Amino acid sequence: MKEIKKCFITLLYTRKAQAVKQWMENEGFSKEGSSSSDDELVDLTGTAQDLIDDVPYLDHGSTANHSNGSWAGNAGLLDLLEEGVPGVGTYDDFNTIDWVREKSKDRDRHREISRKKKQSVLALLFSLSDAFSGWLLMLLIGLMSGALAGGIDIAAHWLTDLKEGVCLNGFWFNHENCCWDSKETTFQERDKCPQWKSWAELMVGVTEGASAYVVNYLMYVSWALLFSFLAVILVRAFAPYACGSGIPEIKTILSGFIIRGYLGKWTLVIKTITLVLAVSSGLSLGKEGPLVHVACCCANILCHLFTKYRKNEAKRREVLSAASAVGVSVAFGAPIGGVLFSLEEVSYYFPLKTLWRSFFAALVAAFTLRSINPFGNSRLVLFYVEFHTPWHFLELFPFVLLGIFGGLWGALFIRANIAWCRRRKTSRLGHYPVLEVLVVALATALLAFPNEYTRMSGSELISELFNDCSLLDSSKLCDYLPLSKVGDKGANFSQSSNGLADRPAGPGVYAAIWQLALALVFKMFITVVTFGMKVPSGLFIPSMAVGAIAGRLLGIGMEQLAYYHHDWPMFKSWCSPGADCITPGLYAMLGAAACLGGVTRMTVSLVVIMFELTGGLEYIVPLMAATMTSKWVADALGREGIYEAHIRLNGYPFLETKEEFEHKTLAMDVMRPRRSDPPLSVLTQDGMTVEEVEAMISDTSYSGFPVVVSNESQRLVGFVLRRDLVISIDNARRCQEGIVGASHILFTDHSPSQPLGGPPPLNLRSILDLSPLAVTDHTPMEITVDIFRKLGLRQCLVTQNGRLLGIITKKDILKHMAQMANRDPDSILFN
Amino acid sequence: MKEIKKCFITLLYTRKAQAVKQWMENEGFSKEGSSSSDDELVDLTGTAQDLIDDVPYLDHGSTANHSNGSWAGNAGLLDLLEEGVPGVGTYDDFNTIDWVREKSKDRDRHREISRKKKQSVLALLFSLSDAFSGWLLMLLIGLMSGALAGGIDIAAHWLTDLKEGVCLNGFWFNHENCCWDSKETTFQERDKCPQWKSWAELMVGVTEGASAYVVNYLMYVSWALLFSFLAVILVRAFAPYACGSGIPEIKTILSGFIIRGYLGKWTLVIKTITLVLAVSSGLSLGKEGPLVHVACCCANILCHLFTKYRKNEAKRREVLSAASAVGVSVAFGAPIGGVLFSLEEVSYYFPLKTLWRSFFAALVAAFTLRSINPFGNSRLVLFYVEFHTPWHFLELFPFVLLGIFGGLWGALFIRANIAWCRRRKTSRLGHYPVLEVLVVALATALLAFPNEYTRMSGSELISELFNDCSLLDSSKLCDYLPLSKVGDKGANFSQSSNGLADRPAGPGVYAAIWQLALALVFKMFITVVTFGMKVPSGLFIPSMAVGAIAGRLLGIGMEQLAYYHHDWPMFKSWCSPGADCITPGLYAMLGAAACLGGVTRMTVSLVVIMFELTGGLEYIVPLMAATMTSKWVADALGREGIYEAHIRLNGYPFLETKEEFEHKTLAMDVMRPRRSDPPLSVLTQDGMTVEEVEAMISDTSYSGFPVVVSNESQRLVGFVLRRDLVISIDNARRCQEGIVGASHILFTDHSPSQPLGGPPPLNLRSILDLSPLAVTDHTPMEITVDIFRKLGLRQCLVTQNGRLLGIITKKDILKHMAQMANRDPDSILFN
Repeated sequence: MKEIKKCFITLLYTRKAQAVKQWMENEGFSKEGSSSSDDELVDLTGTAQDLIDDVPYLDHGSTANHSNGSWAGNAGLLDLLEEGVPGVGTYDDFNTIDWVREKSKDRDRHREISRKKKQSVLALLFSLSDAFSGWLLMLLIGLMSGALAGGIDIAAHWLTDLKEGVCLNGFWFNHENCCWDSKETTFQERDKCPQWKSWAELMVGVTEGASAYVVNYLMYVSWALLFSFLAVILVRAFAPYACGSGIPEIKTILSGFIIRGYLGKWTLVIKTITLVLAVSSGLSLGKEGPLVHVACCCANILCHLFTKYRKNEAKRREVLSAASAVGVSVAFGAPIGGVLFSLEEVSYYFPLKTLWRSFFAALVAAFTLRSINPFGNSRLVLFYVEFHTPWHFLELFPFVLLGIFGGLWGALFIRANIAWCRRRKTSRLGHYPVLEVLVVALATALLAFPNEYTRMSGSELISELFNDCSLLDSSKLCDYLPLSKVGDKGANFSQSSNGLADRPAGPGVYAAIWQLALALVFKMFITVVTFGMKVPSGLFIPSMAVGAIAGRLLGIGMEQLAYYHHDWPMFKSWCSPGADCITPGLYAMLGAAACLGGVTRMTVSLVVIMFELTGGLEYIVPLMAATMTSKWVADALGREGIYEAHIRLNGYPFLETKEEFEHKTLAMDVMRPRRSDPPLSVLTQDGMTVEEVEAMISDTSYSGFPVVVSNESQRLVGFVLRRDLVISIDNARRCQEGIVGASHILFTDHSPSQPLGGPPPLNLRSILDLSPLAVTDHTPMEITVDIFRKLGLRQCLVTQNGRLLGIITKKDILKHMAQMANRDPDSILFN
Repeated sequence: MKEIKKCFITLLYTRKAQAVKQWMENEGFSKEGSSSSDDELVDLTGTAQDLIDDVPYLDHGSTANHSNGSWAGNAGLLDLLEEGVPGVGTYDDFNTIDWVREKSKDRDRHREISRKKKQSVLALLFSLSDAFSGWLLMLLIGLMSGALAGGIDIAAHWLTDLKEGVCLNGFWFNHENCCWDSKETTFQERDKCPQWKSWAELMVGVTEGASAYVVNYLMYVSWALLFSFLAVILVRAFAPYACGSGIPEIKTILSGFIIRGYLGKWTLVIKTITLVLAVSSGLSLGKEGPLVHVACCCANILCHLFTKYRKNEAKRREVLSAASAVGVSVAFGAPIGGVLFSLEEVSYYFPLKTLWRSFFAALVAAFTLRSINPFGNSRLVLFYVEFHTPWHFLELFPFVLLGIFGGLWGALFIRANIAWCRRRKTSRLGHYPVLEVLVVALATALLAFPNEYTRMSGSELISELFNDCSLLDSSKLCDYLPLSKVGDKGANFSQSSNGLADRPAGPGVYAAIWQLALALVFKMFITVVTFGMKVPSGLFIPSMAVGAIAGRLLGIGMEQLAYYHHDWPMFKSWCSPGADCITPGLYAMLGAAACLGGVTRMTVSLVVIMFELTGGLEYIVPLMAATMTSKWVADALGREGIYEAHIRLNGYPFLETKEEFEHKTLAMDVMRPRRSDPPLSVLTQDGMTVEEVEAMISDTSYSGFPVVVSNESQRLVGFVLRRDLVISIDNARRCQEGIVGASHILFTDHSPSQPLGGPPPLNLRSILDLSPLAVTDHTPMEITVDIFRKLGLRQCLVTQNGRLLGIITKKDILKHMAQMANRDPDSILFN
């Protein structure tokens, strides 16, 4: 008996260990740094062992109560759970949850509370607290994520400035804070003050000249290398799950996959720290995507405070959907956009109740962030934009051009990045992740320092590019010639006209154009190799930066064109000389939206986020034109957004909800067993002994077995999960009198008349799911896929004229889809 | 043969006529005005007759192609459709569509186009035009709805002013337009000019005094009666479906119900005209809800331009979902709010593609409306609000009070209105709808005229109440005493302080308070009897008006409290004398949101609509506090919003998606046949003759029959719809050689060896649905209900151990739910 138990444990252990190993190899953790990944492996797989050892003696009296036939399926399962038998009704790591079962469990719990609340005041209070616990949880998530995001903003700002210099008033001040109190600064040069010393000033005592430049350059590169080294080492040592943007994995988790530890406390701590380091190191990455991961970690940790969410995987996923909204809300200060992002981009199951709660949590987070005030301007938004000029209908043409650029770049970026990531997976490159990060960081720092537009952080760059030049602006981008200098050109209109009027570009603008063009090329290439490295890395900011540069360049071009050629037909009707016709900042914003749209394929949420940044309905039409064009162009070149592409690259079992299933196959073409395979492994409802069942379990590796009336008729009775079966048999052998290998296992609701002398039967109807979903063999796969998606199934049985014929699992569907798209079906790794 | 055909026609006719009659009686059209409803009846039911007569000869060669077993189910059906056999695959009036089948049909169509596009350039162009037809349709809907909404606004504005006077420059000018060009007006009194004559001035030549008042009063009442009489007569004579707000019916239609003519061209024309008349008559109703109906009519009519949408009920419902967004977008100038309204409140099936397209259509509509500029202020929004003062944390207390008021009023309003509507249905009151409207219009006009706040239209009233008083405002509500008059109270602070500071109320404000209190009571009562009358009537504006009055009163009270008692602890910390602490307009806005939330139970969409009205994130927290409280309070008193309550009152087959099914019943408790019933009527796949099937069809009234292998085994093969069966048999009898009553009907994919000499068999496998969804008898109803909702099923079969046991239809579920809630299960009228 002991041996059989061991065998089960080993089985469970092996399957789990395989899955974890698969992930590790997949993510390039296999060779170098194997010590840390082995620790992780042991840590993760240890739980399987614990689980088995912790199984208490199963009280069979209680399950008998539920074997009355009508409620044995789900209610029995629930009571088992409430009685604290661990194992039954839970899931292994790297497995997919059964949404129907989880939601059933929650409804049962809810019914139980509703029933009890009429009995006592205490129960009524408990029911009230249960009803409001969702709101309380949302409040806590909002507060915690908002606070964390504020902390990350402040820390990243400080470390970024530390690369250039230090504040004498206190090393913990960033450049801006350092000069706030200084009386020596003017508004024009508000970031130059004696308290702030560049490294050259501090170390060799000079502020100008070649030597100062070299010292600053060296310090910049050294800090960048240090930060990126710390980031990658921390990630590898403590939380391998903290790397990347996290959005592909969160999408997969929200669709029902289980990755233990992905949203754990260590991941949260390490991701928060390394995110700051990675952003400050100057690598071409952003913190907006990882903030979604951070918010989801907060949500997952806070879920443990409430039984309702701790114990139910489906309910927890509702909370995680809301947390993704919170992440975007704090990243861009856009609560409505965040909710739509969660709805459009990441969520799988998004009931209306979640919509409302997400909105609440997103607002709380946004206001928490605002009260922390990390940008020092009391604004909720990252880039506050205020344009003064309306756009003209004819400008839609350049806007659409920006859309085309964004779409092209998005599609090409995805291809290049996926090709690079695949190379990393398959070649020796993947064995040296630390070295890779250091090399990329070195290259980035070396190339970025000489150009001021690449030296500044991504969000500063975008902010500067979005800016509409006012007369007081000291930026190089606003270095226009005053109109009075233009001589004859400007002779025929009033010199006192609008100060914001289109003016000829000055030398600063021309210099900026060259620098921006170089920055564009640099950013386009470096982002491809940066995204996917083993540090936390978001894509929002780098994509937006590329788009904003392209947009600003086009905007300046248009502006100069309109200024020098205001008699051209296309300008004549609306752009009189001396008027403010073209706003280059608006072009930058549209370019940013177009590029982000091309990469992520977001649409409504992107427009709403941008709308919340600018705060005016005025610019929605241009935004829409740009993002729509961008999405169409990008979709024409490749259907997948970057997150879907990474999900597929990693082989996660994710059933895309946006794409229609387009092929004409039937359920019988997809189901197992295939024609050449051995017949389906089924249990009969009263004909098998414990030994036979145990043999079947050890011979196969299926996650569950259908139960039929008899092998001849193949009439379906129910479905039993392997995990539940293993645990129940093991328990019965340990605690129930007379259960031996020859005992019959019954799944019926009445014991048949037993031949005297035989061992007592073991009735397992309580673990039998009496309502498995079945489709006919002629059901088109499009309908089957729809059923899987909408009901969140794990498996579905296939019948023909009432006979059980086979089974379709989520993995079968994914493999079939890969096959139909001429891809390798074995690229789907997990189940 | 002819007789049997007649019999089928009569059967179809009778079932349809019954359903229409049911609706008519339900809506109170049965007795009075029966001439028009009879016409309608004939018109509607005539289509059944036409359908049968139009059936061409069925080409059985083509269906044989598809009887190869693998694609007979849906593909066969599709080809039949494409070959133009009317009837097969369509639905009767007052029936529910099968979403799975409709979506399958569309996917097949799409596959066909994708396959063909590789063959020729023309087909490629067709495929492109097909892909973009959705966007084109959205553009057209946006343009048409925006234009109609603009027209309605202008016409309603003009007719409303006509009740008070006429413009001498041209009777088609409204009051504001009339005085625009006038040089005699000042900014302060911009609506007084010599060109505009009140009726008293025109008819008896006096502007002041009792006689002028009486003449104006009489004219006001006469116009109101005339407008309301015209409205109700037009509705009854031409388009009975044009009455009410239309939102309950649209919700039902979107969930898959078919009401022919509800979104037809006559309904559109009559609803547009009568909406203007009803709003102008001064009745307590709004045009915002009906605008959703108008937009849906536009969408439905425009759908006929595109085969893709004309022929597919599921695709058309996607367009209608977008149209509801358009309706709200033009009603409030809130495109994002409109999309969320459609998502949260009315839509049943809302894929992401629809989200994006809705947003596009809503934007087009909003910009069309703005370019028509019906409010003369270039604003997109109905009530433009700009508040200058931030709110204080302590103000959340009165905000929550407003939420409680809104919730209470909402719940009580729903109860009172439903009780009144039920009375109208069951008592003699319902027999005199014209008289009812005239009496209510008379009462409204008589009571409304003396009070200026009820005399003005609902949207003017709300606009005035939302207004933040500036120094120049001449409104009575802004008649505050200047601070200099206050003497000793104001002595200790500067007289030149902020002009918007809290000031003591003057006599105008006190007078306004009394008038507003009376208006509040009046509006609360009159709205209860108005909503549900046989004229187009929306609830948004009356609900908002009630809330706005209550909010403004509370706001003024708070303001005076803060002014006179600024040393109280609750004001001390933040409200120094002379500061602008309290904004009564904000209170009005929150009150409006709370009352609207209480009545409709909207949440996110309501907050976003209000956010788009005010344009600042600043006020989202108060808005959220008010609407959240309102929803909680209202939900505690009654779970249903006004639209759900009306759906239930009318017995529409609507399966609520927001409520969880809470009972512990199983599929076997709900399915038919019940234990005492005769066994289920099934067809066998090869054992029945044409005569036997015809007898079964005429003996029963079921919409479809399961097909089993044999009566003994009861193994399920498929499901066939009554309508398809009737049409196919009739066709075969007319066109296929040798089909007589004794011919066998086969549903198999291979003909069995036929005994020589017998009549040839009729193979109907092409109309057999080979993939009917089946659940086991032990499936909990909560899961079954979920399956029905998410997949949009019409019926579902129930099996036990592989044997067919019964069938569950949507109506069975609704009846069961009514029974579990202790309501009359026969209140569900349609199927």
